[in-house]
Amino acid sequence: MANIRDVAQKAGVSVATVSRYLNNKGYISEEAKRVISAAVEELNYRPSLVARSLNTKQAMFIGLIVPDIVNPFFPELARAIEDVALEYDYTVVLCNSDEKIEKEIHYLNTLQQKYVAGFIVAASHAETSHYTDLNVPIVAIDRRIHPSIPLVATDNREGARIGTEHLLANGCRKILCMKGPSGLGPADDRLMGFMDAVEGKDIEIEVVESPFQFDASESIARTILQQQSIDGIFASSDVSAAGAMKAAYSLGISVPDQLQIVGYDGTMLAGQLTPSLTTVAQDLYQIGALASRMLIKLIEGQELEEREIQIQAELIIRGTTRSGA
Amino acid sequence: MANIRDVAQKAGVSVATVSRYLNNKGYISEEAKRVISAAVEELNYRPSLVARSLNTKQAMFIGLIVPDIVNPFFPELARAIEDVALEYDYTVVLCNSDEKIEKEIHYLNTLQQKYVAGFIVAASHAETSHYTDLNVPIVAIDRRIHPSIPLVATDNREGARIGTEHLLANGCRKILCMKGPSGLGPADDRLMGFMDAVEGKDIEIEVVESPFQFDASESIARTILQQQSIDGIFASSDVSAAGAMKAAYSLGISVPDQLQIVGYDGTMLAGQLTPSLTTVAQDLYQIGALASRMLIKLIEGQELEEREIQIQAELIIRGTTRSGA
Repeated sequence: MANIRDVAQKAGVSVATVSRYLNNKGYISEEAKRVISAAVEELNYRPSLVARSLNTKQAMFIGLIVPDIVNPFFPELARAIEDVALEYDYTVVLCNSDEKIEKEIHYLNTLQQKYVAGFIVAASHAETSHYTDLNVPIVAIDRRIHPSIPLVATDNREGARIGTEHLLANGCRKILCMKGPSGLGPADDRLMGFMDAVEGKDIEIEVVESPFQFDASESIARTILQQQSIDGIFASSDVSAAGAMKAAYSLGISVPDQLQIVGYDGTMLAGQLTPSLTTVAQDLYQIGALASRMLIKLIEGQELEEREIQIQAELIIRGTTRSGA
Repeated sequence: MANIRDVAQKAGVSVATVSRYLNNKGYISEEAKRVISAAVEELNYRPSLVARSLNTKQAMFIGLIVPDIVNPFFPELARAIEDVALEYDYTVVLCNSDEKIEKEIHYLNTLQQKYVAGFIVAASHAETSHYTDLNVPIVAIDRRIHPSIPLVATDNREGARIGTEHLLANGCRKILCMKGPSGLGPADDRLMGFMDAVEGKDIEIEVVESPFQFDASESIARTILQQQSIDGIFASSDVSAAGAMKAAYSLGISVPDQLQIVGYDGTMLAGQLTPSLTTVAQDLYQIGALASRMLIKLIEGQELEEREIQIQAELIIRGTTRSGA
């Protein structure tokens, strides 16, 4: 059966142009319309999406499964996914999994019954058969699900290394790493990056597990700051770093004079804190937008040029470390 | 034509039980199943949802239109709406309008073509015919659309009055009101509440318009704080208050010693700032959950007991005002 690439080749135009034509969106020259129409006719091409939307009026929607939209990491991803989906006439169904595998499975099943076109998932678990057995395309964001499933994520190990080296360069000698939940891929990668940076250096380190939640992080940081003279914190998320800042404030520890803090994520929260947070920024908008484009390509039967995209993180130096103060 | 209440009455059970039966969800006794089934039969009841999901396999989804999911006010609302929708087997389609009427209209049209069951909308404009002419139920949140459209919102005027009186009680004598965008209902109501509180008092006031955005608010606050000796700020959103805090910090003005600040919304951001922000908290989760339940009632053909629900705001005293320090 002919696919969209066959049509593009036959018509001598790009796949994007055919897609525009089929979706009736954006500018296409009259000449292009003519050759595409002829190619569609000749190849008897029945695009699944057009067939769906014209014949059965099927909903063209994408299921977005995230742990919790209230975590400031996810609204920025969701926003980008929705923006790109809108360009292609898709709508986005928002699903909060609360990191529970049974909620993820519920959504996967329910939305498939509703003819979802595909999924973008920040998965919380390593149980992958629910994902690999799907009948619709899927793209993973932030967290790897399975080698067979395309992924868009940050190079977390490298990002964490850069963030930690900034603390070292600023003179920190007793550094606390607030690592994320064990077993969560990005959190484990960031711990490795932290270890890469400190290995062989003449400094003391302390590693503690801390969820990506403000209250728990504040409490964990307060306990350690009361017991030990920490002069640097590398936190595996901005929310955890914000909790550490609050703990330091309540203990009368001055940031960045006595304690320097580096967060991770580059959410808007980091910029809104006082002092604003030095952080390893992920390009959240780009991650969301790329994942959305990748998924739509898969839905439209196109090949992906890359099945895995790693995006470099960037250190943003602000007020919680001395060279940014 | 019989509706779900007729079935409930006939069967001698609650509407909720009939709903559970129809949606095949939750526990129902064998006896209840029997009487409901008989009532459905006798009344020849054809529930629109069951008809849809059984016959045409229609998607049961709700369109949620918000200005921007990245504003921390909206993820908390979205979360509650999604939680309640999930209970009733609905899914939620997320739409960001960017306060643009043409994007709102696009979503209203597109989702209706996809057989959306109903809408929950935080509308940005007073142009209401797009909403009053809809063929599906709609509930407004946060902002009134039209008297004919059910609304769930906070009593913003009273909330703002309480927040401002807290500044007065704490000794503020030159108060800046950072009001939200003119013409936006909740922002106008909060300005009225501010005026209610200061009227007839022997204090100086200054009112400035500030969008619900961090960077713009910081810049506006900085300009005024440089020119005038303000000792209290009532901000119409937490995001604006956070911007004012940053401006004060960068100018070396100590909060709360020299300048006290009260925000509005009660988002998580308020608790994560240092010092944490005294704020007039809206019960965002309750607003979202009530709106979702209201809409589902309308979709299921039930009458609403109240077409307009006003929720009281609550002052949360924290570190940016003196009695909370």
